[in-house]
Amino acid sequence: MKRYEALAADIEESIRAGVLRPGDRLPSVRHTCASRKLSASTVFQAFYLLEARGLIRARERSGYYVCAVVGQAPPEPDHVSAPQDASVALDVSELVFGVLESSMSREVVPFGSAFPAPNLFPLQRLGRSLATAARMLQPRDTVDDLTQGHAALRRQIALRYLADGINVQADDVVITNGALEALNLCLAVATRPGDTVLIESPTFYAALQALERLGLHAVEVPTHPRDGMDLAALEHAIQRHQPRACWLMPNFQNPLGSLMPLEKKQALVALLAQHQIPLIEDDVYAQLYFGKSRPLPAKAYDTEGLVMHCCSFSKSLAPGYRIGWAVPGRYTREVARLKLSTTLSTPTPTQLALVDYLEHGGFDKHLRQLRQALATRLSQFTQAVARYFPEGTRATRPSGGYFLWVELPAGCDALALHRQALAQGISLAPGPIFSASRAFTHCIRLNYGHDWNERTEAALARLGALAAAQLGPRAEPYQP
Amino acid sequence: MKRYEALAADIEESIRAGVLRPGDRLPSVRHTCASRKLSASTVFQAFYLLEARGLIRARERSGYYVCAVVGQAPPEPDHVSAPQDASVALDVSELVFGVLESSMSREVVPFGSAFPAPNLFPLQRLGRSLATAARMLQPRDTVDDLTQGHAALRRQIALRYLADGINVQADDVVITNGALEALNLCLAVATRPGDTVLIESPTFYAALQALERLGLHAVEVPTHPRDGMDLAALEHAIQRHQPRACWLMPNFQNPLGSLMPLEKKQALVALLAQHQIPLIEDDVYAQLYFGKSRPLPAKAYDTEGLVMHCCSFSKSLAPGYRIGWAVPGRYTREVARLKLSTTLSTPTPTQLALVDYLEHGGFDKHLRQLRQALATRLSQFTQAVARYFPEGTRATRPSGGYFLWVELPAGCDALALHRQALAQGISLAPGPIFSASRAFTHCIRLNYGHDWNERTEAALARLGALAAAQLGPRAEPYQP
Repeated sequence: MKRYEALAADIEESIRAGVLRPGDRLPSVRHTCASRKLSASTVFQAFYLLEARGLIRARERSGYYVCAVVGQAPPEPDHVSAPQDASVALDVSELVFGVLESSMSREVVPFGSAFPAPNLFPLQRLGRSLATAARMLQPRDTVDDLTQGHAALRRQIALRYLADGINVQADDVVITNGALEALNLCLAVATRPGDTVLIESPTFYAALQALERLGLHAVEVPTHPRDGMDLAALEHAIQRHQPRACWLMPNFQNPLGSLMPLEKKQALVALLAQHQIPLIEDDVYAQLYFGKSRPLPAKAYDTEGLVMHCCSFSKSLAPGYRIGWAVPGRYTREVARLKLSTTLSTPTPTQLALVDYLEHGGFDKHLRQLRQALATRLSQFTQAVARYFPEGTRATRPSGGYFLWVELPAGCDALALHRQALAQGISLAPGPIFSASRAFTHCIRLNYGHDWNERTEAALARLGALAAAQLGPRAEPYQP
Repeated sequence: MKRYEALAADIEESIRAGVLRPGDRLPSVRHTCASRKLSASTVFQAFYLLEARGLIRARERSGYYVCAVVGQAPPEPDHVSAPQDASVALDVSELVFGVLESSMSREVVPFGSAFPAPNLFPLQRLGRSLATAARMLQPRDTVDDLTQGHAALRRQIALRYLADGINVQADDVVITNGALEALNLCLAVATRPGDTVLIESPTFYAALQALERLGLHAVEVPTHPRDGMDLAALEHAIQRHQPRACWLMPNFQNPLGSLMPLEKKQALVALLAQHQIPLIEDDVYAQLYFGKSRPLPAKAYDTEGLVMHCCSFSKSLAPGYRIGWAVPGRYTREVARLKLSTTLSTPTPTQLALVDYLEHGGFDKHLRQLRQALATRLSQFTQAVARYFPEGTRATRPSGGYFLWVELPAGCDALALHRQALAQGISLAPGPIFSASRAFTHCIRLNYGHDWNERTEAALARLGALAAAQLGPRAEPYQP
């Protein structure tokens, strides 16, 4: 992290923690230079960054002030979810497909999208790496290393784990067609039809679909929108339901954006190890952190090979390249074999392109820009939700990723809102698609990872008005 | 087909049919020019081609003679297989993986490989298409058309069906990660665990693995090494076992190389339609024909949308790119959805590269060269098998693809031969991996699609000697 970024992160933390409050004046540039032993230009860069994120604002001849950001954000949802304590067969896939397929048009405002704006990614630079890879491709490359993926790419991935202090070697990695294939392979290897799997509540809809397809039962475990699955509830569910696996997302969970603290991850891994339950860890958003460093995955605490860590470059670098991977611990051979007999291998040219990019492309610089763009959009988005959504609306404050989880006032109907908004050219992801019991009927997931402009703001205003209209004639948009 | 190729095909057919026999003198060039109304250079080109394929030979000042090719080829296996008439659960995946994994080294002579030599493919030219695609890639391309694959590629594929007189539109196509994913998706959509599926005997081992993974039962149907599945036996199996699907490979079957005649394909489709049984048609070798034109798939006769046609570019153009597709008829939507929830989508850059190549790359010219190379290698290979393998050996005479099915004399043990050969740096595919009942214990599949050179010939000689040694001290290599 560069010096100005470190300074900005410190100030941001002070704002988030309430040390600096809305309306407070920041220490002057001169003062900050002296106290921090930094150049004026570094301090200015930090202030510009915070201003771009909507956290501070300059006042003419008076210095920088903390914006009313905290006041302008809707209150956070602050209760753990309360799913029913039962092992249920799944029947939500039709609903999920219906919602996803209805939202695919290029014309809609993509609040329902699962992807951030594709223009956030270095596709031109990747294209050069692809051209290089194509030129260097040896015929034998197309038939070598079929099982686990190309050795050079696995090595690059292992190097990044090493940099994060996680013990993963190249031979532990199985390259897949995106993280979705990795997750599906791990689930299929860890379970047999009829088994029970523990999931978060709400949970990523693809997990629900995978369970349904494999004939598995789900137990939804109470989950907090800020720090993830409740471990006491998890322990209870283990005792009661004898699950065969647990699938979750400790970092920037989809749809909540929740982040499980380190000690909690450690306790999670220990608890599952005690019962010898494999953990399928979906970690695709880890690189999109707004804090100081990549939050460690649960895999970092795995001493028994029970954590099946799944990841990809689709959300951090190369959408459309479909390169993901699994680090399946003691299940590595089984996962590799299942991959070999279902999709054989991941394409060679795209794997080699990523090797070239990771070696020469400037991945870390790209990631810094990407994180900053997403953090800025989150701030703009949150403020607009506060401005345009009806009173009683709550919204999460994710510290990474690009999803905002919005709890509308009781009485709102997310599925109806989905249909109404779509008729006006706006997509969203309604809460029930994230739940085996179609709960979260008044919740929606909004994607803030797209361009922020007048059209976006108008669409959010429209959405807020539609939600307010659902509450009857007396409900008015919230005016702070 | 060019004129000289048409002439060569006619002469070849006369040789294969026994009209021209080994030792016969071909009509002179002058005579052929007059009777066919062709230029001398066209006739010479045809003769050179036949010579390259090992079918005719020039004698000084005397003209061209038919080689002793028929005499030099081992006799053909001429009986339909006789699997047990039972619906069985599968338990061969471990055996298959064991054999495949043991054969993966780069150093072995790859008679056991499932791929032809990668140097037969225009990888440099494809690389230029990939570079072009990377330059033209629009960010939106990475999130558009996720479900069925890129529209431009589906259109190119539909154009090729059109050229072959098969009614397939772009919207009927689902792009997949190779044909293997297409086949697995189709099987999963057409069946539920516990169902029975009809397969060939022997059959492609990936079909056995797919059935095993999905908890399906298999009925192996008697199959002839020349013209494929026996339809009377198929009808009997339908009556007796109420299958939910049928999976087969009418064109250049793996491992037999058998080719189902057109009328038989038509009867096959009609029989299955009568019982409303979906046909999963694996057609990945169709472009590798040595005859006059692409043998039509069963799909060409499908009027009810019951044929799920699966194909790819992996064997004809672009190994390692992992681009295949399904044309699943009435199951298209279900197949697309299953793909969406298991691997999401096929990579964008490689799809766009194939679009560029198919538009500008010279696919048909490449295919002509590829077919000619494979036909030549088949001839060389067959003659060497005749020379070096023990008496009593039979070998198929495929008219396409790159697999030779060899029936060794009774008493040979293919699995033992696999181990013995591997110890000497030679791989092969032993018969039992192609059978639910581990039958075909004295059969092997050999890949003739690799370079023919002294090392290849020496390896075949070694293999023949190992087989002879299995028969005891009195068995000698066959000397014609």
